[in-house]
Amino acid sequence: MNARTLPRLAFAFAVAAACGFAQAKVVTKSVAYEQGGQKLEGYLAYDDAKSGARPGVLVVPEWWGLNDYVKSRARQLAQMGYVAFAADMYGNAKVTRDPKQAEEWSSAVDNGGLMAPRSKAALEVLKEQPQTDKSKLAAIGFCFGGSTVLQLAYSGEPLAATVTFHGGLMPPKEDQLAKIKSPILILHGAEDGFVKPETIDQVRASLDKAKVDWYMVTYANAVHAFSNPDANSFKIPGIGYNEKAARRSWAEMQDFFKEQFKR
Amino acid sequence: MNARTLPRLAFAFAVAAACGFAQAKVVTKSVAYEQGGQKLEGYLAYDDAKSGARPGVLVVPEWWGLNDYVKSRARQLAQMGYVAFAADMYGNAKVTRDPKQAEEWSSAVDNGGLMAPRSKAALEVLKEQPQTDKSKLAAIGFCFGGSTVLQLAYSGEPLAATVTFHGGLMPPKEDQLAKIKSPILILHGAEDGFVKPETIDQVRASLDKAKVDWYMVTYANAVHAFSNPDANSFKIPGIGYNEKAARRSWAEMQDFFKEQFKR
Repeated sequence: MNARTLPRLAFAFAVAAACGFAQAKVVTKSVAYEQGGQKLEGYLAYDDAKSGARPGVLVVPEWWGLNDYVKSRARQLAQMGYVAFAADMYGNAKVTRDPKQAEEWSSAVDNGGLMAPRSKAALEVLKEQPQTDKSKLAAIGFCFGGSTVLQLAYSGEPLAATVTFHGGLMPPKEDQLAKIKSPILILHGAEDGFVKPETIDQVRASLDKAKVDWYMVTYANAVHAFSNPDANSFKIPGIGYNEKAARRSWAEMQDFFKEQFKR
Repeated sequence: MNARTLPRLAFAFAVAAACGFAQAKVVTKSVAYEQGGQKLEGYLAYDDAKSGARPGVLVVPEWWGLNDYVKSRARQLAQMGYVAFAADMYGNAKVTRDPKQAEEWSSAVDNGGLMAPRSKAALEVLKEQPQTDKSKLAAIGFCFGGSTVLQLAYSGEPLAATVTFHGGLMPPKEDQLAKIKSPILILHGAEDGFVKPETIDQVRASLDKAKVDWYMVTYANAVHAFSNPDANSFKIPGIGYNEKAARRSWAEMQDFFKEQFKR
């Protein structure tokens, strides 16, 4: 480097700063917490190069548990300037690739009525982080995690945004209608065989009855788990990755966040 | 201004340039053309401060004709860096606020099989503009215009993107399936009484059969004409403005364009 290049470099950096390009320095850490006596271990990600409090995003995994896919989504959110916390819904951050095991674990959470309280416990961890702007919180979830964040919203959690990616959909119960405060974005695969058309109608009708601010995007040729690049590796009929739907749904979420967080 | 402020100013301008802030200078003009012996008069808008060819967007009006609303959308597109051409579907740029008149004019175009050829004629005008990058063309339409751009896409026009805002939806005919080349974005009000649920099912099934890249956004509590701030002034049951759906659908279109035009 010589004297002539220096000013140019300085200018380049000044421009970069002025344009808001800063090198993200994403740090991740495992955070232990508890819910109903169950030890849990979530995955926190944020940009350490960024100062000040920023919106927090809770990320709820697919029924496989806190795997690499959901961790990669948490890191992406951190790069985007959010504090992301990926929840452990099963305990000890356990994961599986066996559908029978995943079915067993997720059913236990569902049948135990733990979707809302357990995800809420993770939300509290996210709130406690010094980087988190507690007034700007969202929850996103994939498949089983999508159902979970819907339950969190149905429980009355005042989230700025709730986003379900190819989630199992279910209408809120009658006694939940008056509680729902969060706007909801439903990202759905047109060919998702895990969600019946009549269920979608019920969800829409109930959310309308509850005067919820919702909208839904339906992606052609997308099946369950369309956002997960590893989906095909599970070799399960009706589960597969769709690059277009994955990209579009992630962009959709970002627009929704920008709107709700007024960023 | 003194010698000390000058370098700072120079720097500020350099940063502005580097960040791509430039003052848009939108020019608009009426362009006369013809289709099937009918004299037509469209509305062109582009940013004169911008140099070089850029993507072109055809804009097809609601059944009211080439009114202020659709012109404002064309100017918005110009500000966004596109060349926009709002089509005249009726001749002599005539407009009305009378539903009976609008019904008569739009039915004449529809029943005459003129939706595709007449919008295609406007597309040709857009292509001829020196500012237009002929390899990057899209068509958007509102209500009747939404139906029209679908027909343009169904006719086989190789558009990079086709977007219908609260358009009347209809499936392509069997002999059109193999022709469709354009990706299609359907922006729809959940409460749009002008489109039957079974029609939506037919459209989806046909587009899937045609292997079209499509996706659809459904906005809660939005009825027909949700994107038009003047919609309520017509005092027609089932037609009304929805600020959220208007904003979200416009952002959706922009994301779709960025994706399809690789901008």
